Amino acid sequence: MLPVNRTIASLLILALVAAAPAWAQFSKPELAVKYRKSALFLMGNHMQRIKAELDVSKPDLAVVRSSAALLDQLKALPYDAFLPGTGDIEDSAAKPEVWTDAERFKKLAAQMQDRVAELDAAARAGDVPAIRKAFEETGKACKSCHDDFRRKK
Amino acid sequence: MLPVNRTIASLLILALVAAAPAWAQFSKPELAVKYRKSALFLMGNHMQRIKAELDVSKPDLAVVRSSAALLDQLKALPYDAFLPGTGDIEDSAAKPEVWTDAERFKKLAAQMQDRVAELDAAARAGDVPAIRKAFEETGKACKSCHDDFRRKK
Repeated sequence: MLPVNRTIASLLILALVAAAPAWAQFSKPELAVKYRKSALFLMGNHMQRIKAELDVSKPDLAVVRSSAALLDQLKALPYDAFLPGTGDIEDSAAKPEVWTDAERFKKLAAQMQDRVAELDAAARAGDVPAIRKAFEETGKACKSCHDDFRRKK
Repeated sequence: MLPVNRTIASLLILALVAAAPAWAQFSKPELAVKYRKSALFLMGNHMQRIKAELDVSKPDLAVVRSSAALLDQLKALPYDAFLPGTGDIEDSAAKPEVWTDAERFKKLAAQMQDRVAELDAAARAGDVPAIRKAFEETGKACKSCHDDFRRKK
């Protein structure tokens, strides 16, 4: 490689690094996949915990509240980790549409986050009918994104 | 099986279920392993994010604060999931000592949680020397538990 080409290559790499500071959080792409899967798995588990409470006649509101607060804390994490080039890695379940239809993916992610905020607010208020409604809406938001952007198992 | 034996068996199962409500969160043991690994992985990642800030001359305190708050939210989660009988499952890294020396394991877990609370408090206060000290102590608490209770890779 000519020195000038090497310089251009270095500049391109620098530009890419500067444009994608999120990469700094993950020393390799596999870790980005593991990160988003970890956050989404915990979210799924705590949605189930809330469901289990809503399925009994007297929901334990402390369980609902702590799970809803955790969901609220986790809800934005996965989206830092859907980095370009991490779709075909290991056991990633992300469809290519995550990147080819990024606008819709972001829109559905934002909708889910709004629903989780409502669920958290209802849980804090201890308002069971509101919790039930917000939980259903959150579940729908999860599903609509999974339907279009997650590979079938 | 005689009816009386069947009754005793049912009562025993009931007693076990009542004694271990944590199991209700996980429909199978593999999910308990995945749960604790997910929480611990996110914690490790956010410890690294704090370290990356402490390694530069002007730490971004917003990053430190959000990572410390997340650590504080996650710090107790793994310990619901170290259920008896989940040591030899899939890619669990838990040594048998988690269960045979449960008292020490719990003690180290509690120490880590105290250190994380201090890290979170220092981060909220924006006190960089205090953050640095609490971060080092938290790292030591992680390591001392990993040394004795996590299998080498």
